Amino acid sequence: MIFSRIESEGLAHYSYLIAHNGEAIVIDPRRDCDEYLSMAVGQGFRITNILETHRNEDYLVGSRELASLTGAEIHHADSQLDYRYGQPVKEGDSWHAGRLKISALHTPGHTPGHMSYVLHDPGGNPWAVFTGDALFAGDVGRTDLLGEDRARKNAEQLYDSIFSKILPLGDGVLVCPAHGSGSACGSSIAERKWTTVGLERRHNPKLQVKDRNEFVNKAGAKLEFPPYFKKMEEFNLNPPLMRTARPLPMSPGLFEAHAAESFVLDSRTELAFASAHVPGSLSIWREGIPGFAGWFVPYDKSLLLVSDGEYPEQEIRMLSRIGLDNISGFLSGGMLSWNMSGKKTGSVDTLSVTEMCSRLDRESGGNLLDVRSSGEIAHSGKIRNATHIHITQLPGRLKEVPEENLHIFCGSGLRSMAAASYLKKEKNLDSSVILGGTSAWDSATCPIELMK
Amino acid sequence: MIFSRIESEGLAHYSYLIAHNGEAIVIDPRRDCDEYLSMAVGQGFRITNILETHRNEDYLVGSRELASLTGAEIHHADSQLDYRYGQPVKEGDSWHAGRLKISALHTPGHTPGHMSYVLHDPGGNPWAVFTGDALFAGDVGRTDLLGEDRARKNAEQLYDSIFSKILPLGDGVLVCPAHGSGSACGSSIAERKWTTVGLERRHNPKLQVKDRNEFVNKAGAKLEFPPYFKKMEEFNLNPPLMRTARPLPMSPGLFEAHAAESFVLDSRTELAFASAHVPGSLSIWREGIPGFAGWFVPYDKSLLLVSDGEYPEQEIRMLSRIGLDNISGFLSGGMLSWNMSGKKTGSVDTLSVTEMCSRLDRESGGNLLDVRSSGEIAHSGKIRNATHIHITQLPGRLKEVPEENLHIFCGSGLRSMAAASYLKKEKNLDSSVILGGTSAWDSATCPIELMK
Amino acid sequence: MIFSRIESEGLAHYSYLIAHNGEAIVIDPRRDCDEYLSMAVGQGFRITNILETHRNEDYLVGSRELASLTGAEIHHADSQLDYRYGQPVKEGDSWHAGRLKISALHTPGHTPGHMSYVLHDPGGNPWAVFTGDALFAGDVGRTDLLGEDRARKNAEQLYDSIFSKILPLGDGVLVCPAHGSGSACGSSIAERKWTTVGLERRHNPKLQVKDRNEFVNKAGAKLEFPPYFKKMEEFNLNPPLMRTARPLPMSPGLFEAHAAESFVLDSRTELAFASAHVPGSLSIWREGIPGFAGWFVPYDKSLLLVSDGEYPEQEIRMLSRIGLDNISGFLSGGMLSWNMSGKKTGSVDTLSVTEMCSRLDRESGGNLLDVRSSGEIAHSGKIRNATHIHITQLPGRLKEVPEENLHIFCGSGLRSMAAASYLKKEKNLDSSVILGGTSAWDSATCPIELMK
Amino acid sequence: MIFSRIESEGLAHYSYLIAHNGEAIVIDPRRDCDEYLSMAVGQGFRITNILETHRNEDYLVGSRELASLTGAEIHHADSQLDYRYGQPVKEGDSWHAGRLKISALHTPGHTPGHMSYVLHDPGGNPWAVFTGDALFAGDVGRTDLLGEDRARKNAEQLYDSIFSKILPLGDGVLVCPAHGSGSACGSSIAERKWTTVGLERRHNPKLQVKDRNEFVNKAGAKLEFPPYFKKMEEFNLNPPLMRTARPLPMSPGLFEAHAAESFVLDSRTELAFASAHVPGSLSIWREGIPGFAGWFVPYDKSLLLVSDGEYPEQEIRMLSRIGLDNISGFLSGGMLSWNMSGKKTGSVDTLSVTEMCSRLDRESGGNLLDVRSSGEIAHSGKIRNATHIHITQLPGRLKEVPEENLHIFCGSGLRSMAAASYLKKEKNLDSSVILGGTSAWDSATCPIELMK
Repeated sequence: MIFSRIESEGLAHYSYLIAHNGEAIVIDPRRDCDEYLSMAVGQGFRITNILETHRNEDYLVGSRELASLTGAEIHHADSQLDYRYGQPVKEGDSWHAGRLKISALHTPGHTPGHMSYVLHDPGGNPWAVFTGDALFAGDVGRTDLLGEDRARKNAEQLYDSIFSKILPLGDGVLVCPAHGSGSACGSSIAERKWTTVGLERRHNPKLQVKDRNEFVNKAGAKLEFPPYFKKMEEFNLNPPLMRTARPLPMSPGLFEAHAAESFVLDSRTELAFASAHVPGSLSIWREGIPGFAGWFVPYDKSLLLVSDGEYPEQEIRMLSRIGLDNISGFLSGGMLSWNMSGKKTGSVDTLSVTEMCSRLDRESGGNLLDVRSSGEIAHSGKIRNATHIHITQLPGRLKEVPEENLHIFCGSGLRSMAAASYLKKEKNLDSSVILGGTSAWDSATCPIELMK
Repeated sequence: MIFSRIESEGLAHYSYLIAHNGEAIVIDPRRDCDEYLSMAVGQGFRITNILETHRNEDYLVGSRELASLTGAEIHHADSQLDYRYGQPVKEGDSWHAGRLKISALHTPGHTPGHMSYVLHDPGGNPWAVFTGDALFAGDVGRTDLLGEDRARKNAEQLYDSIFSKILPLGDGVLVCPAHGSGSACGSSIAERKWTTVGLERRHNPKLQVKDRNEFVNKAGAKLEFPPYFKKMEEFNLNPPLMRTARPLPMSPGLFEAHAAESFVLDSRTELAFASAHVPGSLSIWREGIPGFAGWFVPYDKSLLLVSDGEYPEQEIRMLSRIGLDNISGFLSGGMLSWNMSGKKTGSVDTLSVTEMCSRLDRESGGNLLDVRSSGEIAHSGKIRNATHIHITQLPGRLKEVPEENLHIFCGSGLRSMAAASYLKKEKNLDSSVILGGTSAWDSATCPIELMK
Repeated sequence: MIFSRIESEGLAHYSYLIAHNGEAIVIDPRRDCDEYLSMAVGQGFRITNILETHRNEDYLVGSRELASLTGAEIHHADSQLDYRYGQPVKEGDSWHAGRLKISALHTPGHTPGHMSYVLHDPGGNPWAVFTGDALFAGDVGRTDLLGEDRARKNAEQLYDSIFSKILPLGDGVLVCPAHGSGSACGSSIAERKWTTVGLERRHNPKLQVKDRNEFVNKAGAKLEFPPYFKKMEEFNLNPPLMRTARPLPMSPGLFEAHAAESFVLDSRTELAFASAHVPGSLSIWREGIPGFAGWFVPYDKSLLLVSDGEYPEQEIRMLSRIGLDNISGFLSGGMLSWNMSGKKTGSVDTLSVTEMCSRLDRESGGNLLDVRSSGEIAHSGKIRNATHIHITQLPGRLKEVPEENLHIFCGSGLRSMAAASYLKKEKNLDSSVILGGTSAWDSATCPIELMK
Repeated sequence: MIFSRIESEGLAHYSYLIAHNGEAIVIDPRRDCDEYLSMAVGQGFRITNILETHRNEDYLVGSRELASLTGAEIHHADSQLDYRYGQPVKEGDSWHAGRLKISALHTPGHTPGHMSYVLHDPGGNPWAVFTGDALFAGDVGRTDLLGEDRARKNAEQLYDSIFSKILPLGDGVLVCPAHGSGSACGSSIAERKWTTVGLERRHNPKLQVKDRNEFVNKAGAKLEFPPYFKKMEEFNLNPPLMRTARPLPMSPGLFEAHAAESFVLDSRTELAFASAHVPGSLSIWREGIPGFAGWFVPYDKSLLLVSDGEYPEQEIRMLSRIGLDNISGFLSGGMLSWNMSGKKTGSVDTLSVTEMCSRLDRESGGNLLDVRSSGEIAHSGKIRNATHIHITQLPGRLKEVPEENLHIFCGSGLRSMAAASYLKKEKNLDSSVILGGTSAWDSATCPIELMK
């Protein structure tokens, strides 16, 4: 038997593959399917069914891709929507992989047609439940995605789904959600890598309520709603297959010629970007792509990549997970070849916390921009007098950004560099990035107070 | 956070690696440590502590190997024994990996000093328990390994360990045992890949008892005690480091010259072995090596390997897990080179079930030897008039094997071929192997009854 | 600079990739292009031009495949033919990769429009010549492929191409042919892995002639002309892109159901095939596929594969090189699963040389079939009284095969098993295969004489 | 047959493996032997003999390492030296790999006991010659390594070796030297990847002489003699086996604690180093390690590595090739973790050529340091008024370096950053690095003249 969780970092997305006696079922597959396929061929089973827990909004689901490669059938939750592929699921439907049985449980709340799937072991006992975006380790699904007016009703439904359908499965049942810690789909998902109904019943803060009303009030936190979610929702009704064309290596001259009509994404470290980069490029470090590219990269332009000079295999994979596969080329030889051909470069000033402090002492009027999330601020502390705009909100709140003596920080320096490159690109605004961000704060003696 | 189970097939052995914030703890490592190391380096953590749940008897533990490669500290259960390395553990001892905490729980029964280890999540809640050979999915640990006189007392201790220490952790806690389905350490381990206290409390047949007495009676099944267990017990007090010398490729002439004083193991499929093999060699298919080689292969002779001609990387790894690393060479070019050099070969007759049936009709006096385990017979049915000797018992019960018109079967044909090669080697006895074994029985119309 | 030869085993085909300063030229690419691509991306160059030395007849050229993946331009020799893609080449045309220059040299003989390509090093000196099928190490190209009436004229042209165009380049120039030892495109290609004009001028037996006439007489050896050459010639004017659909793993039941209308190819070792195989299947060992499948496998049926149970990655790649990519499935779990499901199997008798000899003594009238090539017989000796039909001629000479007491041999046993499976499939003829073939003969004392 | 060249980048070192019928000979192996071993096991041959062309001075030879892993015999040239392992070779000695024969040819000049090895093909003809450091593509071996007084005599011997022994083998014979373009062992090795006696006779500038006297005068160019050559010469008489201990991942705190008594090497790109690095560390980009680390890194200190955060597998391999394997740890999590822990960092100013020019206009007294080799300057042009010190000579010529307004350039920026980090470390001297170096010069309009 195979019971495998496939993790997509950056998105903190989990899909699952369950196989027995030569047959397999995959739940919420991602778009790059090679890992499912290599398990199938390496261990001699056939993927027969694909189950979706809901119409996803934060990534492009791989159901159609996987079906095209394996002949598997696709089964949809949220079947009220206008899907162009697959079959609708209703509560009680079931599928087999060898002697394993999986059956559908309607668990609305995150979306109206959200399904969970209960897995029975070869002995027939309920054993695990795939809860999609209904229940996470330490958190519950968002109920705010359909708009404010629906949020309360959604939260009520979610309460019923969790308390009347999932928890009654029994404390010993494994809970297998669609996301782990770090996802944009839950503000406070816990770090438990595996969890159970019992652990959630006892330790999930959102479930420690006396009644539905308290739950609804607690669940109601409103989170960022990135514009690309709309794009993903649209894509997921009719997902395009992955492009097979490979981005071409481009010499500096060719790259520069194409750059004018393209969007240039630089996936190198924030430090390398700081020293020299192609003017007008956006910095997103490689692992940050699935989580942040969707907020800044347009879907209607071709993309050019700058990485460390090797073929940007990982970048292409990361971008494809959110449907960005219109990548026409990459800078062959990396920035070294760019520099050797004498092309112009941009740079971003970097400062340590200590340097920033002494500079702020000297230059009255220095401005701090904090691009961390509200959750991080609540957890790690607020800097006195800093302007706070979560990095994902920058596109809509550009006017609030101070234009002079701007120092940007986040938790590490990575997102700050993304923000700095975005501000340069959109507003031609120069800024400096605080290396190490708030993580470095405690180690420095600084007049600027971190208020925890 | 990393929470990873490393499975060693053939032994159905599970080890675990838990990492957080750059530190990792490994529980019951196997001897080939590359998988732990590649996780450590790929994900940037350091292995700081190694925990053993008990002195193992079915494989050679990798603690010393892993410690020599990483500088980690080793902590022993069963600390009454005379270990030549590592530190003793006592109940309540604890270790940290980042913000994860693991603490020791004395759970005797399988062995007197057996330890389980309780893992707390970053929030501090008990989250998982590593139960070693105390509690499996659907089964409990063997209590018969210290001899018959100790078995009852051991079973009583095991009852207390499970009912008073493990089950009270709560239904929601994950149970992470040292073995899965297929291990020689439990007769009826269930196929659930992951399990919980709650699932075991409700579905483990051995735990469905009214009191300790009933448990002791139920647990008392006596299983095979392979002679190499003694060797492993001895090794595990002072495990040798792995040999770094690589077996040499040998031409047919050189191989033949060495074969006289060596033990020749052939890991090809049973079908290829049937057509032609080096005379006097033992057939164990590759994946069967960790589970079966220990019963037949001597520890005091050098080994020669015959495989499909490529470097026998997997065979070497499999053999090393049970301490067989005195491998001097392998047949370069495989059997093709042997045949092309005109060397003598042996062969084994193979029959389908249908052929066997019609032959038994013709030849009165045909004899059937069934080498399956008692558990399989109970589960899949007994063949009328077959002699039953579990393959692992063959060395001690050679005299009971019928010497004429012998047809051997198991569940598939793989173990039958191992048995046939062993009988030829030890008793110069010719036999035929039934392809497909009992699995093929139902598809054939045969006068020989399979009594389920 | 990169100067790399890519070898396709089985076909003994060589393609070449030359790169300098970010640009590369590929000569006679094979159809599976991943190796070219991984060099390109790993080392940061772009493939800009693809050169063909002639319209190939023994494999499906990868030009169109590679062009579709890279945007490179294709340049054809034999441009009198009706190509559906690419550009024609004429003598003197030249291309650059960085500071390397390659220019075309018309070298007819093997085909009327055959081109060689001369490479100049960065200093501008002639450095290497890509001779396609004009000149090999120790041999020259075949001149018999266009029919007997053209053979003499072709040989005359080839003499001029070699003596007036290639040899004058100078002894120090590297000779880079399209084939190495083992190819069906030359009867006696030498084992020198790299060679030069000087080495060929002095040591190539076909060039040790006093005039053109002697050369023509020497070159005239007629070789086998396999029917699939016609298919390749047709394909190579308009090569289809590779199918991306992956063969599906099939359970024994499903495999059996499809087998009726498909062609079943078994790539396991000859020994495993001997013991048990799917009835009606053809045996070709894995490495033999590119060299032998074209002679027996039809292009108008879907293919099913039996291998050792893993995904038949290599088999698919090998088959694709000769345009056989209509592969619908493979037997999941290999023959073990077939046997365990109780399906019928075929088998082939195997004998050592010694056994055959003693059997021939007993059974008067035993018949020997020798499927080696004429070249091998000339080199290794002829067996008295054996019927000789080269394996590739079997389809057209079935009537000559003796029908009783048939013993088949080749040089090793591999091709014998292919022949035995073919005879069983086509004529329902049972035979036995001599393990080790003539290679084993010397080691045995046998009344049957090997006449060297 | 296998005829394979194994290239070690950075050192531009070539070793060769020749195999036939299951036996192989390796010539001048490098220290990391996995590539030889994986060929041996993948293709089923045994390495039986190791031949050295001379006592090497630019890398640590892998003979003893490879012998310890395979049981092969080692054969030394320069056998007048006091080797602690292996057998001496004298002219005419020969070895076989299958039907291939290799025989020794005494070719003194680079060293007194230098041997070349002539390979005969399976037909017995001379086919290739392994010329070690006697003859390269486009260059000849250095004759200055034994001191000025020996240089003339060495050059005379080398003339005789080449003209009386190597060239007479015939124009068609392949020449297989120990180094390619980029090596410190030849000032002007050509880019021809493969070469022949004929190509060298006609195109090698050093061989275009009318007599021995002219050759001696031409050959006499004196090159840099790096101090680590002495270390290599000593090591190569008694090479230590590679350490198996793996460097430990270190947290920023631990790394900082060890840094005080260690040497810190940073292998990231020059751009990332510029923004932030561990104070006191030396910058050598990864591929530059084998060629440059030997000049700056001490052999008597333990090494700490900073790379991009992953396990520094390549760095360790590169360092081992020149005997630097005393590596105690690497910075876990890379500079990101260093910055997040608030540790101090250093930085280096970077400038484009255009920026430098305009700055030099403004700041009278700016100083330029050119760290390119004399060969590069001759080839690409000299910058007016720049101080020229080849990077490898910096340790001995520190006093000549201008101390104010220092701008450093090389051909790309990589070596400049190494120089800048070295000057900071040794003299606490701040400088700026010109990105793109002279390669970028042509693209800029600059008052500073590049005089070609």
